[in-house]
Amino acid sequence: MADTGDKKPNANAKVKVKHGGGGGKKKEVKKETGLGLTKKKDENFGDWYSEVVVFGEMIEYYDISGCYILRPWTMAIWETMQAFFDAEIKKMKIKNCYFPLFVSPAVLEKEKDHIEGFAPEVAWVTKSGKSELEVPIAIRPTSETVMYPYYSKWIRGHRDLPLKLNQWCNVVRWEFSNPTPFIRSREFLWQEGHTAFATKEEADKEVLDILELYRRIYEEYLAIPVVKGKKSENEKFAGGLYTTSVEAFVPNTGRGVQGATSHCLGQNFAKMFDITFENEKGEKAMIWQNSWAYSTRTIGVMVMVHGDDKGLVLPPKVASIQAIVIPVPFKDADTQAIFDACLKTVEELSEAGFRVEADLRDNYSPGWKYSHWELKGVPLRIEIGPKDMEKKQVRCVRRDNSAKVDIPVVDLVKEVKDMFDKIQQNLYDVAKQKRDASIQVAKTWDEFSVALSEKKLILAPWCDEQAVEEDVKARTKGEIGAAKSLCSPFDQPELPEGTLCFASGKPAKKWTYWGRSY
Amino acid sequence: MADTGDKKPNANAKVKVKHGGGGGKKKEVKKETGLGLTKKKDENFGDWYSEVVVFGEMIEYYDISGCYILRPWTMAIWETMQAFFDAEIKKMKIKNCYFPLFVSPAVLEKEKDHIEGFAPEVAWVTKSGKSELEVPIAIRPTSETVMYPYYSKWIRGHRDLPLKLNQWCNVVRWEFSNPTPFIRSREFLWQEGHTAFATKEEADKEVLDILELYRRIYEEYLAIPVVKGKKSENEKFAGGLYTTSVEAFVPNTGRGVQGATSHCLGQNFAKMFDITFENEKGEKAMIWQNSWAYSTRTIGVMVMVHGDDKGLVLPPKVASIQAIVIPVPFKDADTQAIFDACLKTVEELSEAGFRVEADLRDNYSPGWKYSHWELKGVPLRIEIGPKDMEKKQVRCVRRDNSAKVDIPVVDLVKEVKDMFDKIQQNLYDVAKQKRDASIQVAKTWDEFSVALSEKKLILAPWCDEQAVEEDVKARTKGEIGAAKSLCSPFDQPELPEGTLCFASGKPAKKWTYWGRSY
Repeated sequence: MADTGDKKPNANAKVKVKHGGGGGKKKEVKKETGLGLTKKKDENFGDWYSEVVVFGEMIEYYDISGCYILRPWTMAIWETMQAFFDAEIKKMKIKNCYFPLFVSPAVLEKEKDHIEGFAPEVAWVTKSGKSELEVPIAIRPTSETVMYPYYSKWIRGHRDLPLKLNQWCNVVRWEFSNPTPFIRSREFLWQEGHTAFATKEEADKEVLDILELYRRIYEEYLAIPVVKGKKSENEKFAGGLYTTSVEAFVPNTGRGVQGATSHCLGQNFAKMFDITFENEKGEKAMIWQNSWAYSTRTIGVMVMVHGDDKGLVLPPKVASIQAIVIPVPFKDADTQAIFDACLKTVEELSEAGFRVEADLRDNYSPGWKYSHWELKGVPLRIEIGPKDMEKKQVRCVRRDNSAKVDIPVVDLVKEVKDMFDKIQQNLYDVAKQKRDASIQVAKTWDEFSVALSEKKLILAPWCDEQAVEEDVKARTKGEIGAAKSLCSPFDQPELPEGTLCFASGKPAKKWTYWGRSY
Repeated sequence: MADTGDKKPNANAKVKVKHGGGGGKKKEVKKETGLGLTKKKDENFGDWYSEVVVFGEMIEYYDISGCYILRPWTMAIWETMQAFFDAEIKKMKIKNCYFPLFVSPAVLEKEKDHIEGFAPEVAWVTKSGKSELEVPIAIRPTSETVMYPYYSKWIRGHRDLPLKLNQWCNVVRWEFSNPTPFIRSREFLWQEGHTAFATKEEADKEVLDILELYRRIYEEYLAIPVVKGKKSENEKFAGGLYTTSVEAFVPNTGRGVQGATSHCLGQNFAKMFDITFENEKGEKAMIWQNSWAYSTRTIGVMVMVHGDDKGLVLPPKVASIQAIVIPVPFKDADTQAIFDACLKTVEELSEAGFRVEADLRDNYSPGWKYSHWELKGVPLRIEIGPKDMEKKQVRCVRRDNSAKVDIPVVDLVKEVKDMFDKIQQNLYDVAKQKRDASIQVAKTWDEFSVALSEKKLILAPWCDEQAVEEDVKARTKGEIGAAKSLCSPFDQPELPEGTLCFASGKPAKKWTYWGRSY
């Protein structure tokens, strides 16, 4: 189809259409009311992001700051990732459970380092109805301390191990700095896995097995390249032994995003909560623990990485509508026949297992619908007009690159499947290309400073000392936040003997990614 | 297989087995440690229930009163029901969303009748970290007031209707009376549907469509007979127009259980939250709303209705393990061959789509395993010993009625499927028979009093006046709670002209179920 010539709407407000009086049954006038973003991603990223999540109907702002409503457009994506991850962990014989939202202060405060990390963000319930509670009760910011007293009870002998539980739930962290939809919110949804093993080897292995699932969520589902690596001592999970993560990057802001974390807790919590077992030799031994989580933050990263000035751009694997079919009737054409062709297209693609809908509303023009579904990020638009009917074809327009291609109706399923695969791959490739172009190696402080000011993802040789990281933070403190280590990638470039730390000048021990982060 | 002669364990404590010193690799001694209930369902129902949910590993008691840990054995049942219900509502074009856990007081208190119903149970967050919040924030006891301000924003014209949302989430009701696992807990999991329509007719229809799904959860999944009906004015949802419910009954305690509710909210919330739309005539109109929910309470009802003195009894449709395969090795028999036969049985049944596991642990005797899996309520036990191998059969033992039947290995899948169907049906039939035997018609106050003292589910002609229900409550108040109306069944017996209300002596308007309830 050629362009239909509809003018693109650009006003924003959702305007009620006034009709003439009389009240009789009359055809509703065509709405050409507002949609479309007013902010540009490259010019004002923060406002663009707020707009795109709201106009794309993913988020509604809520009357309590830092809390957001997740609309169906979001939840469908969450559920797709959840179905994948839940099935994978079940294959690993991890079982779902549900522990309470509430934690008593005595238990919460049992692990000192841990609670120091979370204490400032804990929300406290002190009243029910009009009565004061005898003891204030905390809302879980995470569930280590909620769960582990019971691990101590349940685990007696080596045959009780491994104990591998997971829960899908909400957690609350009452943060005050810069609430951002998905990325930093006071309540969010996540899964949290909590596992216990007889040996460190088993725990170490699982940390990486789970991290690989997180990589797959980002790379295979959300089409976002991530770096797998290990967190620094400063940045590891409070109370844990070591933390691994998948790290994403948002080129527009030059910020890293901790995408998901898989922690080996070592035996620290086991000591605090007295989680021991009788091993095969009949001796008392202490368990090894992991915990790991990913959250609705994933969805925010997806919006930030792929979205553009027209709106959301959803990867086909997670989009709740993968293709939208839009009739393009012309004056003299047989409108009903076009509508029928649209419905047949939906039916055929749905039967093939795709998520496809038709937008047959008669009070919006095709052009308005194009903009609407572009704003919502639907990966593929299928237009059907009289000429297409004649030629036994449909016109496909890709959301990711606007490419238009006419497809013979006989090849519909095969071609659409092919296009989804290509869109998914292209989104990943483009994101990876932009991410890679942002990587800057910095071997000296000067190089580091320049790269940071240029919003780069900085790969630098580091001495791996905590005090040095503190120093880097102090030296880069500014309005837009200090730089910190993001991770030391598992995939380490060669580190020639004699290489010095970019910050301290001491001998470097490893390559580490640095930057500002969300 | 004949009984193996293992003595049934009867101690309770989970005892750690001591091994001799030496530390060398030695075969672990057989554990014959405790399991089995100490309380009987007919003698001490309350303690029996507490024991069965804990020993059956569904629940762990938590250090905050009224909060319970839902263990994997529970969550698997919840997830099965969730998969069914979620798929059904998606067919009805209801979409999932997620609204915040927190409500601001201004919004919570907007609908007066509603908040009066919930206010005493609302938990309040007043602190974060060490700071007092400016305004205390409530935790949702249900989400009408959380959601409807946004319905007001999203609904403009008739084309925005119907708006049909659902969320799976936790809610908090800080009740002080008799916390009981699943049945009455301070936090519980549920789904809550919230829908908005242009017309009352559409709302009325959906109320019943959803109620039918609730009936199916109870009758088809949990094998529990329920009565569909309408709640009295006293018992309806606070702030709603009318409430329908499915009502279950626990014969042992003579108590009704409100199984799940489907409310028509009418236009009351719409008025409070100003949810209007422009109808097809271009006039301003007010929406009609429903809300509906079922919770983890369903699982408690299942335990109460089907459980027995040996433990849980799970219906095959919801059991996370439908059949457990147990090897019964004898001294001279080829143990490995028996183990292989067990694994082959699991494989064959799993491939046929059943949830089956083998218990090959070598430190427990077959008898201990029988008791263990009976306690956990697994619907079918499959025993394989040397004689079964010889005869190319397996022995099946049903949990519901202890019936034993030998099945030729060649017919395994067909016979097991058949047995699951029979178990599911039998559980329902037995429960229905017991429930029906508890129903007592009472036409006078005297008959009513006798029936109530006999723990009956009382069906009585009623004048349908609120004051009369209040009076019944006052007159039956006692240690174990007052009687109240449970529902007026949709399926009304004939009410001959001149029939009088059992309580007021006024002309009766309908038959209504009465009793004590959970």
